[in-house]
Amino acid sequence: MAVSWQIALADYQQRINGLLTERLDALPDTAPRLKQAMQHALLLGGKRVRPALVYATGDMLGLTQADLDPPAMALECIHAYSLIHDDLPAMDDDDLRRGQPTCHVRFDEATAILAGDALQTLAFELLCHEPLSVSVESARLPLLQTLTGAAGYQGMCGGQAQDLAATNTPVTLEQLEQLHLAKTGALIRAALIMPAQLAELPEQQQASLNEFGRNIGLAFQVQDDILDITADTQILGKPQGSDDQGNKSTYPSLLGLQGAKNLCQQLHQQAVQALGALPYNTELLQSFSDFIINRDY
Amino acid sequence: MAVSWQIALADYQQRINGLLTERLDALPDTAPRLKQAMQHALLLGGKRVRPALVYATGDMLGLTQADLDPPAMALECIHAYSLIHDDLPAMDDDDLRRGQPTCHVRFDEATAILAGDALQTLAFELLCHEPLSVSVESARLPLLQTLTGAAGYQGMCGGQAQDLAATNTPVTLEQLEQLHLAKTGALIRAALIMPAQLAELPEQQQASLNEFGRNIGLAFQVQDDILDITADTQILGKPQGSDDQGNKSTYPSLLGLQGAKNLCQQLHQQAVQALGALPYNTELLQSFSDFIINRDY
Repeated sequence: MAVSWQIALADYQQRINGLLTERLDALPDTAPRLKQAMQHALLLGGKRVRPALVYATGDMLGLTQADLDPPAMALECIHAYSLIHDDLPAMDDDDLRRGQPTCHVRFDEATAILAGDALQTLAFELLCHEPLSVSVESARLPLLQTLTGAAGYQGMCGGQAQDLAATNTPVTLEQLEQLHLAKTGALIRAALIMPAQLAELPEQQQASLNEFGRNIGLAFQVQDDILDITADTQILGKPQGSDDQGNKSTYPSLLGLQGAKNLCQQLHQQAVQALGALPYNTELLQSFSDFIINRDY
Repeated sequence: MAVSWQIALADYQQRINGLLTERLDALPDTAPRLKQAMQHALLLGGKRVRPALVYATGDMLGLTQADLDPPAMALECIHAYSLIHDDLPAMDDDDLRRGQPTCHVRFDEATAILAGDALQTLAFELLCHEPLSVSVESARLPLLQTLTGAAGYQGMCGGQAQDLAATNTPVTLEQLEQLHLAKTGALIRAALIMPAQLAELPEQQQASLNEFGRNIGLAFQVQDDILDITADTQILGKPQGSDDQGNKSTYPSLLGLQGAKNLCQQLHQQAVQALGALPYNTELLQSFSDFIINRDY
């Protein structure tokens, strides 16, 4: 493969980390503890998969990175807020994330709740306010529409509620898929669709990107479930088998480990197939889907 | 006074309650417990002050109620989300709101956190998607900008963090004012500014509305502090003196009860004065400010 996802990812990570650092630094110090909690949650590591997908898709479509910055930042803010709230004692009760104390452990629960809340608002604020080229300014409202749909009741947040409902309750494979399509998949698809909106891609091509996102989003989750069984704490930065402790259905628990691995391969193939319908150089996105199923962290 | 706030309020309340009920009913049942928690928090009572201010200001400016619905709904969603999160055990730990069990008591903490999160997203989603007349469609992005600013770190959410920081710590009168201008005042001002944006009001008139909002927002809080001392649980729907238990500075604690009452009168006068600069029939907004300082609930 000529283009490696991991090399591109490093560049994208550097860009988004710089932007997010700068943006949070610029907040006034009116609520310093809240600001620190937002910085802790947003700036201490993270794979930056969603921003990277925004940049990779946008690069493929010939957009400038500057026009991709607002959706990339906004998506990472939404992702970071969801992790803060998911880690709370009332939810997954995780003390550790990326090898660091989680937000409520480093600060306190009240501050963590507010940091999540403020990061959610910041996501929409960035999409409302950050500069866009005149030529793509008309995409601002569609971008906001995509992000609200992906983040809310019918997207990530509703998926998290479905995930809660599935704890200690057996679910079908179909229910597990629905849950993950909402909880993780919605933001992944938004990361692909937002650049398409900026580029005013025809509907059919947007549908192909959506289909790619649907498959890699699920593959990402299946691989997460697999790694949760096979990897150790040091690599994952969270206790091994932590999802299992809550007695949640996972792909390996429903399909067996080998069945889950087969599904991951199948989703990968469908993802690559969806890319084939696009009249662009899709090497980088293809490399991403390879990375998804081969990663060990 | 020819126009009574309380008569107008009843109409506005009926309108907003109908709209919000309809909007939540329309959500699919993919996460039924989350949907119920959102309904519980959003639909079980509440004074609807912010939507009513949107309608009152918009009526004054000659806008249609239909164009005022999206900002009215969005503001109430933000307000409702903030109450859910404020009531959580990690924050104010309140079991009762409006005489009803709070969201985390009626459901559970995890669901309450998610219901707040989903209502925040819904606010922005409504502003993105709800229809507006063609003649005011260009105000959609400015409305979104106003709401993100009012809700986030530099508005309500940051104010709540300042409030937390002020617990068990003596604050100055200036700090108390800053805190309330952000925590409560930001949404009140947004309720006045959003109709002004729809009507494309000149900047100077927007500044007068903002000044009105600043003063009634503070007066609202001062009166809240006064009522917390003087009213009983039955009327307020929350335990009397509950703010005092957390050892928070209040206007009466800094100024004495009479001093707080004097400040409330002074803010009321300044509010009425700001209205005087507007070339519109401001009777209804003036009646609102009378209501603020005379209310006993």
